[in-house]
Amino acid sequence: MKEVVLQNRPTGAPRLDDFRLVDWQKPALSEGEILVEVHSFSLDPYMRGRMDDAKSYAAPVPLGARMEAGGVGRVIDSACEQFSIGDFVFGMTGWATHAILNAKMVRKLTLPREHLTRALGVLGMPGFTGWFGLTQHGKPKAGETLVVAAATGPVGSMVGQLAKQHGLNVIGIAGSHEKCEMAVNEFGFDHCLNHRNFETPKEIRTEIARLAPLGIDIYFENVAGHILEAVLPLMNVHGRIPVCGMISWYNAGRLGADANSSSLTAPHIWRNILVNRLSVNGFIISDHWDQFGRFLQDLEPMIDAGKLKYKEDITHGIESAPAIFIGMLDGQNQGKTIIQIDV
Amino acid sequence: MKEVVLQNRPTGAPRLDDFRLVDWQKPALSEGEILVEVHSFSLDPYMRGRMDDAKSYAAPVPLGARMEAGGVGRVIDSACEQFSIGDFVFGMTGWATHAILNAKMVRKLTLPREHLTRALGVLGMPGFTGWFGLTQHGKPKAGETLVVAAATGPVGSMVGQLAKQHGLNVIGIAGSHEKCEMAVNEFGFDHCLNHRNFETPKEIRTEIARLAPLGIDIYFENVAGHILEAVLPLMNVHGRIPVCGMISWYNAGRLGADANSSSLTAPHIWRNILVNRLSVNGFIISDHWDQFGRFLQDLEPMIDAGKLKYKEDITHGIESAPAIFIGMLDGQNQGKTIIQIDV
Repeated sequence: MKEVVLQNRPTGAPRLDDFRLVDWQKPALSEGEILVEVHSFSLDPYMRGRMDDAKSYAAPVPLGARMEAGGVGRVIDSACEQFSIGDFVFGMTGWATHAILNAKMVRKLTLPREHLTRALGVLGMPGFTGWFGLTQHGKPKAGETLVVAAATGPVGSMVGQLAKQHGLNVIGIAGSHEKCEMAVNEFGFDHCLNHRNFETPKEIRTEIARLAPLGIDIYFENVAGHILEAVLPLMNVHGRIPVCGMISWYNAGRLGADANSSSLTAPHIWRNILVNRLSVNGFIISDHWDQFGRFLQDLEPMIDAGKLKYKEDITHGIESAPAIFIGMLDGQNQGKTIIQIDV
Repeated sequence: MKEVVLQNRPTGAPRLDDFRLVDWQKPALSEGEILVEVHSFSLDPYMRGRMDDAKSYAAPVPLGARMEAGGVGRVIDSACEQFSIGDFVFGMTGWATHAILNAKMVRKLTLPREHLTRALGVLGMPGFTGWFGLTQHGKPKAGETLVVAAATGPVGSMVGQLAKQHGLNVIGIAGSHEKCEMAVNEFGFDHCLNHRNFETPKEIRTEIARLAPLGIDIYFENVAGHILEAVLPLMNVHGRIPVCGMISWYNAGRLGADANSSSLTAPHIWRNILVNRLSVNGFIISDHWDQFGRFLQDLEPMIDAGKLKYKEDITHGIESAPAIFIGMLDGQNQGKTIIQIDV
């Protein structure tokens, strides 16, 4: 039984020695708890925030404690009535081969075993984030234009596909030629541009302006940084910016010198919000679990029918998690990043 | 017949010689137009934006053209059926003693003559701005805390009084001891702090935190700059920021070096929006004239009954307009700034 713990708080990009793989000493089960054998756990950008001790919407991971993650697996011991040995569940297992979880914080999965990982991506937190942010705050209307970055990631690919179903002109941004091909050919985006082909936000802006001749109505924000700087001046009057993340600024730690060197200033942001009457809404998907049932009801049939595609990037072995996580923050993943434990 | 025209585009704070008082050569009336003898016109912060040629939500005032303003006055000639000589009207008269206006762009006033100036402030664009922004985007709930700056101005005093009616803890910010006394004693704010007593945004923040022990739920944004910097970290989860102006940044012209020297950075703003799930909505009141009737219906009885107070800062003579406008941008007004033409 192994787990990955936080060894050091990184400044800037995390390094391999900020993590440590250790043996886990399983405590005894208390009443109401279950022991889960983890089959897969999720790596997500928000985890970078948990490594800092800055005030945020969730408590930081304490030094020496297990890294946080959602995972899926099989119940192998139970001290509660709701779960039996053999049940498949989703819960906050962390980066580990096994986890003891409070039964109240666990969800039983009815997915076929070969599709359990859907609960980490397209039918889990990232997919739900895309669906909720787009429908609740993006308010898409046919004929409008949407831009989303990390286009082939689990949030971006959900947003782009749903926006296409609503009849929008959908422009993705991604970090490689291959990802852009995937966004257009597999996920059905109208366009996708590789931001690594451009030197400056201004060059990115010129290209987006060409692809969005009527301007941008929805910018689904999950990256910030240069992309936000490129997009903001192209927003149409009454545009919407749902904000669910800012991965390009996470590694700036406490948002220090690196982030400040951008020519995107506070007055520029505020002026754009006023002049274009923008609606900017931050949201954290964990506030909205009450709508998760409706999300599953809407989306599961679409996935089963092949009307909504998804892509998973699975690596085997808990020991690979730190390197894969570091790579994901740098955009090296293709699709939902998942660590699989071979059991 | 005189008018004030824009002589130069200012960089930073406008100066007297950016304006010029000139004789106005009245053109002949065309069909559908009226000639108005202006009794009073309004000076508002948004006019600073019209002096720049930067892209904004309204066209800039051309060099040599009349400065823009809403005004009230009497019809003294008419080439249309809807208006007769002697009618009192509101229209975009500009900074002038007389104006020719398209009848379609003019509103007949039923206010008693001694209260015509209400159509420029409490029952005009600024009051409407406060009412609309607070109710539509602020969504006030009893027991919450609201902060608004320029507290004794026509927007701030409307917002604060309506928020009190909704049962909020209302904290004003103003630029003098006298204004703060007025905010508390006349407009009924719970607290008001004089920002000139503080050296830094951090000091202002400490004082607001003392007055708002439960944090801030609504920050009604009309000033930005140091006040925004002070307030933003105090926002509660699910807080709302209606944005109707940013007077402290208007004089930064194209938002150059001055504005950038603030420690309020784009990443700080974005991070606060995400972490606290803020809803930030820019709005321009001219998008919402369809609701003006409802506003008048709600507010006029309150004013007649003395349940809603207002304060006007009236100066006589068109020649004083440039100096009064410059002073207003520096916070030297007390209440709605109005230039009265003695007719």
